[in-house]
Amino acid sequence: MEFTVEQIALMLNGEVKGDKSLKVSQLAKIEEGSAGSISFLANLKYEQYLYSTNSTAVIVDKTFEPKKEYSTTLILVDNAYASFTVLLQEYQKVLAQNKKGIEQPSFISTSANIGSDVYVGAFAYIGDNCKIGNNTKIYPNVTISELSTIGDNCTIYSGVKIYNNTIIGDNCVIHSNSVIGSDGFGFAPQADGTFATIPQLGNVIIENNVSIGANSTVDRATMGSTILREGVKLDNLVQIAHNVEIGKNTVIASQSGVAGSTKVGESCMIGGQVAIAGHIVIANNTILTGRSGVTKSVRKSGRIIGGVPAMDNHDLLKSQVLFKNFPKIEQRLRDVEEKLKEK
Amino acid sequence: MEFTVEQIALMLNGEVKGDKSLKVSQLAKIEEGSAGSISFLANLKYEQYLYSTNSTAVIVDKTFEPKKEYSTTLILVDNAYASFTVLLQEYQKVLAQNKKGIEQPSFISTSANIGSDVYVGAFAYIGDNCKIGNNTKIYPNVTISELSTIGDNCTIYSGVKIYNNTIIGDNCVIHSNSVIGSDGFGFAPQADGTFATIPQLGNVIIENNVSIGANSTVDRATMGSTILREGVKLDNLVQIAHNVEIGKNTVIASQSGVAGSTKVGESCMIGGQVAIAGHIVIANNTILTGRSGVTKSVRKSGRIIGGVPAMDNHDLLKSQVLFKNFPKIEQRLRDVEEKLKEK
Amino acid sequence: MEFTVEQIALMLNGEVKGDKSLKVSQLAKIEEGSAGSISFLANLKYEQYLYSTNSTAVIVDKTFEPKKEYSTTLILVDNAYASFTVLLQEYQKVLAQNKKGIEQPSFISTSANIGSDVYVGAFAYIGDNCKIGNNTKIYPNVTISELSTIGDNCTIYSGVKIYNNTIIGDNCVIHSNSVIGSDGFGFAPQADGTFATIPQLGNVIIENNVSIGANSTVDRATMGSTILREGVKLDNLVQIAHNVEIGKNTVIASQSGVAGSTKVGESCMIGGQVAIAGHIVIANNTILTGRSGVTKSVRKSGRIIGGVPAMDNHDLLKSQVLFKNFPKIEQRLRDVEEKLKEK
Repeated sequence: MEFTVEQIALMLNGEVKGDKSLKVSQLAKIEEGSAGSISFLANLKYEQYLYSTNSTAVIVDKTFEPKKEYSTTLILVDNAYASFTVLLQEYQKVLAQNKKGIEQPSFISTSANIGSDVYVGAFAYIGDNCKIGNNTKIYPNVTISELSTIGDNCTIYSGVKIYNNTIIGDNCVIHSNSVIGSDGFGFAPQADGTFATIPQLGNVIIENNVSIGANSTVDRATMGSTILREGVKLDNLVQIAHNVEIGKNTVIASQSGVAGSTKVGESCMIGGQVAIAGHIVIANNTILTGRSGVTKSVRKSGRIIGGVPAMDNHDLLKSQVLFKNFPKIEQRLRDVEEKLKEK
Repeated sequence: MEFTVEQIALMLNGEVKGDKSLKVSQLAKIEEGSAGSISFLANLKYEQYLYSTNSTAVIVDKTFEPKKEYSTTLILVDNAYASFTVLLQEYQKVLAQNKKGIEQPSFISTSANIGSDVYVGAFAYIGDNCKIGNNTKIYPNVTISELSTIGDNCTIYSGVKIYNNTIIGDNCVIHSNSVIGSDGFGFAPQADGTFATIPQLGNVIIENNVSIGANSTVDRATMGSTILREGVKLDNLVQIAHNVEIGKNTVIASQSGVAGSTKVGESCMIGGQVAIAGHIVIANNTILTGRSGVTKSVRKSGRIIGGVPAMDNHDLLKSQVLFKNFPKIEQRLRDVEEKLKEK
Repeated sequence: MEFTVEQIALMLNGEVKGDKSLKVSQLAKIEEGSAGSISFLANLKYEQYLYSTNSTAVIVDKTFEPKKEYSTTLILVDNAYASFTVLLQEYQKVLAQNKKGIEQPSFISTSANIGSDVYVGAFAYIGDNCKIGNNTKIYPNVTISELSTIGDNCTIYSGVKIYNNTIIGDNCVIHSNSVIGSDGFGFAPQADGTFATIPQLGNVIIENNVSIGANSTVDRATMGSTILREGVKLDNLVQIAHNVEIGKNTVIASQSGVAGSTKVGESCMIGGQVAIAGHIVIANNTILTGRSGVTKSVRKSGRIIGGVPAMDNHDLLKSQVLFKNFPKIEQRLRDVEEKLKEK
């Protein structure tokens, strides 16, 4: 497929600076584009590439003012990054292979309720009394255990395992090999040093518009529910323990973990490899920087926190610089001690 | 199903304070209970809820003395927490869909030896010369490779992959998508900068009563065996490297890793996101707090250790407070230097 | 199978010191060997076992000089460790069950192109227009989505999920339940607090001789490719984000993560649980010690770096010792302050 620069400017509500009749047929990074490519420039770190790019057209912010000559055609928009995202989405809609139908062999319980326009891949397993919404795609080698419900327009990628009694809303995406509803890590110590298993009788509830990356785990509640609220986004290899609740639109990067019964607020941004202890509360709009370890509740919203144990990130950065210079600081103390002896 | 409060008191060897004839049909948290619920109160942090709960009955310790009016019926027992666990287990036994039989299509080698009352889910794969014990459940999409043995009363959840020659005891539970017996990370550097693969010819041995969470990995030994001793409990996303041995009744929380050839003692408690280096020894009854990084052997048993590199947790907490106040401490040093100049 | 010590010495280009006619039939660690075993001694930490081993023969370096009596037979070689590796490889070749053929039921698209001498396990799924090279093994419950290419002599273990358009070279090994080509974690914040999904239209390219452990994740690029260069080795539970490039022969240990768009150089050695931030560059031959957190580019090659944020490992060790003694150092400062007051 090919579009003129003018067609794309129209789609993006933008203005063309250059030849409107040029044709583009692919998306490319500004530094990698060739004739027929369309690129974008949002981060000025990449401005240099504008002056040398081979892309036929580049989407830029209206407010951008070139400092040198350039040979590409510009499309001026309110927000170059957002516009490019729109373009990607349109492109993907075209690309998307709209999978439908039931591949064989698959296993669908006779008591399961399957919506319209559903895709079920080969070797997928849908247990007793499950309910799968309309337009939902279940890829090969997925297992959905009994009494689970999945909403409309969901994509459950290959190898995902969903335990019994899980409830998943509409427009959710779960990437390969993530596990939803496994037992919480609950063991009661016995007098003889062994541990008795505490039955995990709760479930997992995932609301609408949630995305989960690959190889992540969300444990079921001991009683009640582990809950991911509307719009939550989890990256790969994230651990959500039993009875945790993650607030609306909170985003958690790769390899982070939230321990049991903790309640994370709305619109939080949690970096990679963060650890959040159990039985605490994190206020709305909290930012936890990568690698932080939070052991106490964060009650005031909007703080930026980092380190182990976590503190205000501003203070952390200061302490970290001093830590780096610790040998010099200790030498200064030594010098002071020496001087005092002399006196 | 419905029970009278009296029936439950009998089952738990407890005493009723209130109306014995009331009926309960579900378990609930004390703060969430409604008519027909039974709850428990073990941690006095939750005592307030006793006075307002809507649960029909609450299990409490014999020694508990209410400080206010309450409207629920009490069941007095020796240990409320333990009693509730018993109740949960009974409840689960009833709930448990006692899956049995071989679903189709599944793949069972003709040389495999399958016990009695076994469940094999659809798309499960059991390789040549495998042995599956009585009452064991193999969920859909599990792969068990040749020459592996699984004992009696085990539950292998959907998507677990067990490599060849693995030995698993009785009463073990492995949650979805965990991998047992993958190759250890062994590569020999070559003169040209490449790495030659060191064949991993050992296996994994998992003793009785071991539980493993979801998406964890236990590598096979280079030679000999990687061993999880009786009663070990691993959480989700835990890494156990080649030739590691984890002692009896040791518990390891989520996202922790133990590097190659390390030997962890018995009854250790290892927090989340802990890293234990290779080729070291951790004594019995060691507690490693969350996020700690242990690089040297811990030879004295019963220590509580934290930090990176790990030290006594008591000392760690002191150093962490000083780290947080490092800018103030450095200012004090600056003041001292200033004063000395003046003199 | 049984070999004489002489046969093995011949295979390894070694010299026998002792009885050449003795027979060995198994490999064992020097401390665990019994009659009929062959072991090796490379690390002198284990020298003591040479004098007590029950192994029939032990491979040692030519340069090794025993300090005590011993009863085993020695095979002297240039490099005991390398020689033992050769032996292991030969042993494994014999052991290896050379799996071939297509097990049923499996799902192979009619448009897929399958090479010669390929193994496809039951419940494996190979999508439209995929290409599988000669001698490659696809184990049970693997899913390979449309338009993906896998080279010759690869082993894709059970449960691996490969998304569409992935390109994998020759001689690659991917262990169970790893995921290749899942979406990058890309979401554009919207004015109403929700996040719009940024379509991930790129792919993953894995060059020749790459090994990936179990339960690791390699995300596809937003545009362009996420790339693992020739000879890269990843351990278990490793996260490689979108648009990352890992240079030739770089090795990454378990539970480490590399964030989006970062470029790691050649022949780097990255320890366990390391975090590398996004959009940075790591020079060739960099060593990152376990648990380090790298937030800025490392431009000079060959450095050894550790800590959070990462610094020269030599300096880190000094600062860590001082951190451990922080209470004593603060007390010294207190003493100094006290003395100054007195004056």
